[in-house]
Amino acid sequence: MQDIYSYIDENKEVYIQWLRELCQIPSVAAQNRGMEEAANKVISYLKELNGETKLVQTSGFPVVYGKINGKISKTLSFYNHYDVQPEDPNDLWDYPAFEGVIDGGKMFARGVADNKGNLVARLAAVHAYQQVRKELPLTVKFIVEGEEEIGSIHLEEFSEVHQDLIKADGCIWEFGYRNADGRQQISLGVKGMAYVELVCKGANTDMHSANAAVIENPAWKLLWALNSIKDQFEHVKIEGFYDDVLNLTEEENVAIQQLIYSEEEMLAGLELNSFLLDVKGNQLKERLIFHPTCNICGITSGYTGEGSKTVLPSEARVKLDFRLVPNQDPHKIVSLLRKHLDKHGHQDIEIIEMGLEKPAKTPLKNPLAESIIKSSKELTGMDPTVMPMSPGTGPMYILCQKYGIPSVSVGVGHFESNNHAPNENIFIEDFIEGIKLISTVIDDYANR
Amino acid sequence: MQDIYSYIDENKEVYIQWLRELCQIPSVAAQNRGMEEAANKVISYLKELNGETKLVQTSGFPVVYGKINGKISKTLSFYNHYDVQPEDPNDLWDYPAFEGVIDGGKMFARGVADNKGNLVARLAAVHAYQQVRKELPLTVKFIVEGEEEIGSIHLEEFSEVHQDLIKADGCIWEFGYRNADGRQQISLGVKGMAYVELVCKGANTDMHSANAAVIENPAWKLLWALNSIKDQFEHVKIEGFYDDVLNLTEEENVAIQQLIYSEEEMLAGLELNSFLLDVKGNQLKERLIFHPTCNICGITSGYTGEGSKTVLPSEARVKLDFRLVPNQDPHKIVSLLRKHLDKHGHQDIEIIEMGLEKPAKTPLKNPLAESIIKSSKELTGMDPTVMPMSPGTGPMYILCQKYGIPSVSVGVGHFESNNHAPNENIFIEDFIEGIKLISTVIDDYANR
Repeated sequence: MQDIYSYIDENKEVYIQWLRELCQIPSVAAQNRGMEEAANKVISYLKELNGETKLVQTSGFPVVYGKINGKISKTLSFYNHYDVQPEDPNDLWDYPAFEGVIDGGKMFARGVADNKGNLVARLAAVHAYQQVRKELPLTVKFIVEGEEEIGSIHLEEFSEVHQDLIKADGCIWEFGYRNADGRQQISLGVKGMAYVELVCKGANTDMHSANAAVIENPAWKLLWALNSIKDQFEHVKIEGFYDDVLNLTEEENVAIQQLIYSEEEMLAGLELNSFLLDVKGNQLKERLIFHPTCNICGITSGYTGEGSKTVLPSEARVKLDFRLVPNQDPHKIVSLLRKHLDKHGHQDIEIIEMGLEKPAKTPLKNPLAESIIKSSKELTGMDPTVMPMSPGTGPMYILCQKYGIPSVSVGVGHFESNNHAPNENIFIEDFIEGIKLISTVIDDYANR
Repeated sequence: MQDIYSYIDENKEVYIQWLRELCQIPSVAAQNRGMEEAANKVISYLKELNGETKLVQTSGFPVVYGKINGKISKTLSFYNHYDVQPEDPNDLWDYPAFEGVIDGGKMFARGVADNKGNLVARLAAVHAYQQVRKELPLTVKFIVEGEEEIGSIHLEEFSEVHQDLIKADGCIWEFGYRNADGRQQISLGVKGMAYVELVCKGANTDMHSANAAVIENPAWKLLWALNSIKDQFEHVKIEGFYDDVLNLTEEENVAIQQLIYSEEEMLAGLELNSFLLDVKGNQLKERLIFHPTCNICGITSGYTGEGSKTVLPSEARVKLDFRLVPNQDPHKIVSLLRKHLDKHGHQDIEIIEMGLEKPAKTPLKNPLAESIIKSSKELTGMDPTVMPMSPGTGPMYILCQKYGIPSVSVGVGHFESNNHAPNENIFIEDFIEGIKLISTVIDDYANR
């Protein structure tokens, strides 16, 4: 691979410029800014690869599709997105959010880590391979959506209508990071999600709180309902909630033990004294990766402004996200929640579904993961860290596992990339290494 | 008293005009509108009574004070306020909020029931008595504050500095209503209040909710703390909370039984099927009047806007009002709450005190109450309803019981006066009757 690596090193300014230009487009899906421009920029790069490329319309922002045929029909796909999170709060950025300033070996920009750096590294890897070896050893596909940061709301529609486009032998997922110890982190799955809002109503109007002696308060009622859902030991008390959770395999246990998690740095950064339930070490890592959660994202009722107001509220609302693990099913979880509320006398608490995603997991032993692990070790001289699952969520199931496609995450971010936060950044060195890694995987995976 | 009653009837248009003019001043303390104008208007009426009158400065809006000497030094005082609640929402009013339109025998205006109608009726009673009999049989005082609707925040300061001004043998309190059955309602006390905000903090920043598996969520923590404070049977679980609550006296039990509460109309108006814990009848009335409460006025944490956001909040807040009954002490209740939270592992939940008021109660058997009950019966031909306490709260203790002054509430509102709400109103007939009642009490109380 030295010929390709040399080409990448000699042309690195070209690829850095590709990345900078894409980062200069403020493609914030939530605010409908720069979306068409970003999609067209990705298409222009795909055209440099002499492949088939098109903008596939959906009911929302379009998906950029690209396919470059190689020597064999075996296909490696890349799932990425051209949209980014909003950049605010602007005053906490040390550099403009949409310029792509390089300082201290890092490029700073909203989206540079999540996930324009990964997208451009993959485009560049294909480009460099072609420049040196003329033809790719296998076929590659790019699926680049525009709604990842707003919940991939039309991606299932896309995948169902265009099953032919997403068909592949393996998929490299959008995110990936380097750990504090310098190793690349590879992950093989994502948690699922059941996001619901619970609405509890009382009288038809807010009342003077003197009436609290005789009129039910929906905030208290909602609170008691929530208390029945999870106890102080973080145990979800919905009957059947844990029934479908798989036991960890021996391989997964080993992976947990090998995983590096910088506990002290994390606590210091958050100004906390301990983790939840005082967990540490392997127990902490296992919770983070393999435990389902029930989290209050937001709760509101009554008067929440400055000062005091003596009011008996007429309504209370809570937003809950359940992060789910294989093989929990979000539809089943919502149905169990309904049963639970009914059983506890809360038939009148309404459940509004606000986003259901299945968890997804690729087995540790599969040709794509093996190819990436081997390529990472060859390139960096270190074994990568393998996470059997990521604690986050994404539309992996509807693009990959639903159609039997294994998926693996690896990328050019690092543990302090500040995704979704001010001063988002990647190291230029990681970006170049990421281009080399993908070109190596293209070469290696073709022969597995 | 027929001579005075006749004078009142013959001059009722004068007194209605007094009321209308005061109601036309939008004296909203919370918005600092029309406050000086309203205070001056009250002073101009007091000057008609040929008494001593002055504007007493406080750190907030001034108190209007008036004193009219009578044949004896025995003193009856009137506590009122010249401020009103904000009038919004404007679009729900059938008449302008600050015109004093009369329609169907009622005057409609913000503050006409709470409590400009009572204030003007008392001024008019003194005026009519003087016109007919020249000299009052006893001395009367007016204490008219400007901050009742914003928590009487400087009234304790006023009362401590001006103990000479508030000194009296009995005090007629600001509010009072006629029941659905036409009887006047007399009440002899108010609940106390401990209004607190609880603040629970987590990490120093909102986080991606994937971290909920290992980082504590302050919303859940606050919720479990609240759950430890009150159970689903509405029992407050703070150790010692009920220790100082007095048993009902035989007289109070009788008063509860005699009290009229229109359960069906109340439920229909609120579109509810039942009261809290399905209470009815005497049990309902006893709860309303004699039970302390722990009410959630407002709760907030995390993302409460439209749609979904997967966030682990860094803070959660709740506003609680405890309505207290004799002899509970709000300072002691806050201290018990602190101990309770500490004992349940919530040392890090902060308590912010936002308003502490002691409950106040005047015994059923006292000369002022007896005088009002007798006068009401003589005037209306019906026994009034006597409420040993009101479910509401007010600064009664700091003006009356603290200095041994008995206090009784009676006034010109009715059960559908819509205090604090659109279309606030009183019946003109009740207003005229209220003037007659106060003139009768002045006459009767002088001889007790």
